Amino acid sequence: MTAKPVIVLVRPQLGQNIGKAARAMLNFGLTEMRLVAPRDGWPNPEAGPAASGADIVLEQAEVFATTQDAIADCSHVFASTVRRRDLVMPVVGPEEMADRIAASPNRSAILFGPERSGLETEEVALADAIVTVPINPEFASLNLAQAVILLAYEWSKEANLAQPTAKELEPRAPHGELEGLIAQINDELDAKGYFHPPSRTEATRNTLRTIFTKTGWSSREVKAVRGIIRALVNAPRQR
Amino acid sequence: MTAKPVIVLVRPQLGQNIGKAARAMLNFGLTEMRLVAPRDGWPNPEAGPAASGADIVLEQAEVFATTQDAIADCSHVFASTVRRRDLVMPVVGPEEMADRIAASPNRSAILFGPERSGLETEEVALADAIVTVPINPEFASLNLAQAVILLAYEWSKEANLAQPTAKELEPRAPHGELEGLIAQINDELDAKGYFHPPSRTEATRNTLRTIFTKTGWSSREVKAVRGIIRALVNAPRQR
Repeated sequence: MTAKPVIVLVRPQLGQNIGKAARAMLNFGLTEMRLVAPRDGWPNPEAGPAASGADIVLEQAEVFATTQDAIADCSHVFASTVRRRDLVMPVVGPEEMADRIAASPNRSAILFGPERSGLETEEVALADAIVTVPINPEFASLNLAQAVILLAYEWSKEANLAQPTAKELEPRAPHGELEGLIAQINDELDAKGYFHPPSRTEATRNTLRTIFTKTGWSSREVKAVRGIIRALVNAPRQR
Repeated sequence: MTAKPVIVLVRPQLGQNIGKAARAMLNFGLTEMRLVAPRDGWPNPEAGPAASGADIVLEQAEVFATTQDAIADCSHVFASTVRRRDLVMPVVGPEEMADRIAASPNRSAILFGPERSGLETEEVALADAIVTVPINPEFASLNLAQAVILLAYEWSKEANLAQPTAKELEPRAPHGELEGLIAQINDELDAKGYFHPPSRTEATRNTLRTIFTKTGWSSREVKAVRGIIRALVNAPRQR
């Protein structure tokens, strides 16, 4: 049995929308909600009434300071957003996302941005892939709860199938481990004066993140690459 | 080209929900709404603001006195409701409904009941089939606009109207380029005395090869990683 995906609301604004998202989730059997820096704090008295009975989702919701923290134990992370010109990342539809979640034995997460502005570039860059609902190009007006319900619905269809088709050979490493690798590379490159000029540092760091996030490396492989980085920067081994 | 299905709201209660249904429809390219005996008359000033810009759907909405009248020109009619013990009728899921609509050259309709009570038995009986969204049996709480958006979404997938989710992945680098990267890493690691003891060198090289082959990196990304390796082994850049 595959793990149910975690729904991560990044900097949600209105408690009402958090409640509606909880209701959308529970309709399709999703129960694990994570909140990253909710604007009005947590708990929020406006969430309960909007959840229409999906209180258990709100009661179990966990709050995190950063998106990184919220996805540290998740192996597959999807960012729900429109396609981004500023990032070179895989873009999948809801069905492909559901396939990938079902094929993984580990925990997955789907990120949703704030109601008005959506996810920031750095937040999208944390994900393995963008998930986009194909929508009327002349009227694209999905609200938060609608985006949640459509993706939860696709997940539930896939989860009802008896057996996932392709199992992963070696499960992907949790994102926390990937973060460790990316931080190590960043630090070592910093020490070499790699990030230059300063005006392009942010873009370079995002590129570097997407390159290493898309690898699909397992925990064992992340460890191996960390060992390689260490060997490259160290003095030659004495025998 | 198949005809777009008509969305028929039977005795809708709140203008706000009519507006939300219009918004849900237009997101997936549906524009034809029919209202059967709306409780508060028509037009309803609460509908517009809730439509969030889907005004064209509301402006073109037609009002009918009876459900029979509203579906008189439709060849396929689906009643959106839970399964009914009181009626022996075919029950289909959203995908099967979408298939049938797409297969018909004639106009189809989907009936939705009033917010609280749902469709009456006689109204369901007017349809060719019941369409039911498979939902969490312990928390079935779809509101009108959510039911509309899920069925409109399935229809749009079938109709292939919305913009395709082309997977805009950058093409993978040719294997020759990957080989170049792997050779570079091997050489640098050799210089650091990494492959030790000799008995395990072959296994380590193979592991390293699979780790970097599975990344799916593009030519651009392979170049970036080669730059990173160079930076890691070089002396810090002088400014």
